[in-house]
Amino acid sequence: MGGDHGPPVAVAAIARDLDAWKNDGVRFLLHGDKAKIEAELAKAPGVAALCEIQHTDLVIGSDEKPAQAMRRGKGSSLWNAVESIRDGKAHAAVSAGNTGALMAVAKLILRMMAGLERPALVASWPTAKGVKTVLDVGANIDCDAQRLVEFAIVGEAFHRAVHGAAKPSVGLLNVGSEEQKGHDEVREAHRILREGGFDLNYHGFVEGNDIAKGTVDVVVTDGFTGNVALKTTEGVARFVIDELRAALSLNWLTKLGALIAYAGLRQLSRRLDPPDGAPLLGLNGIVVKCHGNAEAKGFASAIRVAVNLAQSQYATDIARNLEHLTKALADQGASKAMDGAPEKIG
Amino acid sequence: MGGDHGPPVAVAAIARDLDAWKNDGVRFLLHGDKAKIEAELAKAPGVAALCEIQHTDLVIGSDEKPAQAMRRGKGSSLWNAVESIRDGKAHAAVSAGNTGALMAVAKLILRMMAGLERPALVASWPTAKGVKTVLDVGANIDCDAQRLVEFAIVGEAFHRAVHGAAKPSVGLLNVGSEEQKGHDEVREAHRILREGGFDLNYHGFVEGNDIAKGTVDVVVTDGFTGNVALKTTEGVARFVIDELRAALSLNWLTKLGALIAYAGLRQLSRRLDPPDGAPLLGLNGIVVKCHGNAEAKGFASAIRVAVNLAQSQYATDIARNLEHLTKALADQGASKAMDGAPEKIG
Repeated sequence: MGGDHGPPVAVAAIARDLDAWKNDGVRFLLHGDKAKIEAELAKAPGVAALCEIQHTDLVIGSDEKPAQAMRRGKGSSLWNAVESIRDGKAHAAVSAGNTGALMAVAKLILRMMAGLERPALVASWPTAKGVKTVLDVGANIDCDAQRLVEFAIVGEAFHRAVHGAAKPSVGLLNVGSEEQKGHDEVREAHRILREGGFDLNYHGFVEGNDIAKGTVDVVVTDGFTGNVALKTTEGVARFVIDELRAALSLNWLTKLGALIAYAGLRQLSRRLDPPDGAPLLGLNGIVVKCHGNAEAKGFASAIRVAVNLAQSQYATDIARNLEHLTKALADQGASKAMDGAPEKIG
Repeated sequence: MGGDHGPPVAVAAIARDLDAWKNDGVRFLLHGDKAKIEAELAKAPGVAALCEIQHTDLVIGSDEKPAQAMRRGKGSSLWNAVESIRDGKAHAAVSAGNTGALMAVAKLILRMMAGLERPALVASWPTAKGVKTVLDVGANIDCDAQRLVEFAIVGEAFHRAVHGAAKPSVGLLNVGSEEQKGHDEVREAHRILREGGFDLNYHGFVEGNDIAKGTVDVVVTDGFTGNVALKTTEGVARFVIDELRAALSLNWLTKLGALIAYAGLRQLSRRLDPPDGAPLLGLNGIVVKCHGNAEAKGFASAIRVAVNLAQSQYATDIARNLEHLTKALADQGASKAMDGAPEKIG
């Protein structure tokens, strides 16, 4: 029921890639107004066979605060979708609804994986070397070194599961590539990632321009910097495209040129379009957010992310690397305690 | 002597806009190897009449560390250029040399304005509404609220002096526009800027996409976030241009289209090109850094920044607003002390 369009887009997204879902054995549990959903299913032959409906009248509005959603959201379509994971009725939830509400309700119902505190928000980023992963992009404003290392772990597992890289490389966003650059948190996270014995292809520091270059598969940063980088990128891309449009409307010659080069310009727009489907990482369960204004293509892309995560070793990978982190932090605590102890007599 | 090209580019930059310099009564004191500089002046008629040479053999290399430059840089061209401001022989210094060395030497010789600690690095940013100002872009990694307010003050004075806006608007970069968004430092800076009685057109919070939109004239942020935003923007712009080039080379039709639309594409490239000339703000004196690989056009643009700053009320504006800041911080100290005092009896 969420997003700008509700059931029509959800059903159209299933219809769009019907054969792919069938091949992968995917089935759908649709939460919301039964009559509205059935009306859509009637228009889409073959979709109903893969779907089951769990009726509810209640919907969480797009402008409701997370606290409000947690208080009065029980029984809503968003709530039921998340609950169906906890109850073993579904392997993953996809929603185009209210992001804050989805995050709060998912955290309440599914709880975080042991050792994690808040879900990380992930962005899929078009780059010169294909789609890459950047996190956190806004859920966690203040991040210590441990939090950054957690992002590296969950982001790496996500990238392998969804984008199929066998051994995704992970970079830590900084203002330079030398060891002494950056603030304490980022330097400490760098040290833990290098020395912690993780099953992780850690590349080291990367800089802002490395994101679009695609230097690494997974870029790790705090939610403040990641959010600024994401929105800055959206702004620049928008600006350049607008300027390009203006430049090609300069006179009849440029307009003619643009018309003739149409195939190329359409390819450009496709290459710059970020794929939809942002998982909330770190929960005991798979929850994927798609844009509120997503059309069938975007919603289908978010479903694909959820399916790939559900069919992967994602959770096991994360758990194994989190154990390494716990050990690295314990060793560090022990070595700090040793620093206070009297020196060993040689 | 600095930068990739040395004297040829510095002299060519003066030659490029000779009439403008004459109109503004600008004269040049060139620091470096006398023979090399004179050889260049001989090729550029009219330039020599505006120039004086202060000879030195010593040059700070582009890979020397700031500490090294401070120890053994005395008497070098970079050092002498900064010293000539302190000694009243010049009103401003422009250098294409080693950035770290320039910052360290300038701070050592000129010292910071009262109350400021380190120079801020400023970026001039092409946006949908013309060139805007963003600072800090990398000189100050950890910034408290006071430091952010200082950036607002010096950045606003810079933008008025160099870009001619009568009352530049100032925004604070954050992850949302609501009061409760962001970390403590940015919220506290927001409060001081709103309540401190500054002579400043403070707009409030802006987000990453507002930079390229040109929502405000001056965007204020810490050096970590600013550096990431700047390099991310460079990366995205590079990526989009490369993709555009690839898209227009797709086949003979797109190539033909690009050829026909050439005028428009050239306009696009001009509109996206950031102007050169980044001042180090907050020093007792005007020091402008231009790119090491700048050609005559970029170097001339950096000289223009220096001339505009030198001819403006820039330093007085800053001093006046810094007084407001001192007062705001003192009031805050007093009010905090009052919080601890027993309540007044009504």
